[in-house]
Amino acid sequence: MPYTYDHPHPAVTVDIVLFTLRGGHFEVLLIRRAQPPYEGLWALPGGFVAIDESLRRAAWRELKEETGVNAVYLEQLYTFGRPDRDPRERVISVAYLALLPPGTARVTADSDAAEADWWPANDLPALAFDHERIVAKAIGRLRGRLGYSSMALQLMPAEFTLPELQAAYEAILGEPQDRRNFRKKILSLDIVEPTGQTSRRGAHRPARLYRACDRNVRYW
Amino acid sequence: MPYTYDHPHPAVTVDIVLFTLRGGHFEVLLIRRAQPPYEGLWALPGGFVAIDESLRRAAWRELKEETGVNAVYLEQLYTFGRPDRDPRERVISVAYLALLPPGTARVTADSDAAEADWWPANDLPALAFDHERIVAKAIGRLRGRLGYSSMALQLMPAEFTLPELQAAYEAILGEPQDRRNFRKKILSLDIVEPTGQTSRRGAHRPARLYRACDRNVRYW
Repeated sequence: MPYTYDHPHPAVTVDIVLFTLRGGHFEVLLIRRAQPPYEGLWALPGGFVAIDESLRRAAWRELKEETGVNAVYLEQLYTFGRPDRDPRERVISVAYLALLPPGTARVTADSDAAEADWWPANDLPALAFDHERIVAKAIGRLRGRLGYSSMALQLMPAEFTLPELQAAYEAILGEPQDRRNFRKKILSLDIVEPTGQTSRRGAHRPARLYRACDRNVRYW
Repeated sequence: MPYTYDHPHPAVTVDIVLFTLRGGHFEVLLIRRAQPPYEGLWALPGGFVAIDESLRRAAWRELKEETGVNAVYLEQLYTFGRPDRDPRERVISVAYLALLPPGTARVTADSDAAEADWWPANDLPALAFDHERIVAKAIGRLRGRLGYSSMALQLMPAEFTLPELQAAYEAILGEPQDRRNFRKKILSLDIVEPTGQTSRRGAHRPARLYRACDRNVRYW
């Protein structure tokens, strides 16, 4: 098919799957839709890409506009384009996976969101559009990365103990990890280093504190 | 930004990075553009997504129309959307990574391609649009996968020796691999199994033949 100017163009949106750990729980940020279609249903924050802005910029903007959340790790996840995924017109959505470190999880609903709140990532309400598929893809991407990357550290505070990191992995994976295997695996990945300090919080005896090896891996 | 129907829509295209191994060389399929912009330059096969077809179907169709190639492993790579990436209008391109097994590498130029040919993936001519970035992303994805997936087996014949597989890895990675480490790593991945037969082709002594463990991992 040669390039032409006169064929119908689809609409293009971005949708953002923002994960955080709150009180040890693995959660995703949803907004309740204030407008049709799917008015009143929960959905991912997102919206149209402006004709002159990059996809990544659109993702940042929509997240900020609809939820008040700023400055998070953000990577492109996948593009969803089934012809019937939106009842209004052909809408192709470029989904982003975003991670928010703890302590910054205050959200405010705005723009076309009636409400914004955190939901357990593994126990979501019915979602608008194909957003359940998008969340499932994002969870799969994050879980797959745990085994060979430093991605999960984006969800941790600046300093943490190995038991705290293990608890984070368990929350994301949804299953307990063997303590010795976990320590061995994490240390072999070479993504954390001891700070030289110890922590007494929550532990029966002092536990060594760790931090991400390369602070440059934190994108926020 | 609320949903509206009257804002300008971008054009959406698919571009396909098709890799194969030919005579031991790691190659990518390019077409020479028959029309402006970038008329006469080499580019990735691709084109507009029809308003009623899925992204994946568009990728298959464009690859077939422009190069005659059918039935290959195909996965979504990344979506490229910089506002200035096409001189004509805003064009967002969903890129696909495709792999072609050996012996099926005949190509024919058609549609808006003046010519279609294989080029060394690590030594490309100047490409149209941002296609050099797209190829670089595809090479990075494939190389990254070699260490923990069966993806490279899509580029192998149905049966192969470990030295043949090592040669394929070396061609893709662009650097020699230590023979003992390679064998150990590949066998630990649990992606190949012996067929029980041996091969005499090319080797000083008979070498065991292997195949992909799960034939279902071959998508073609």
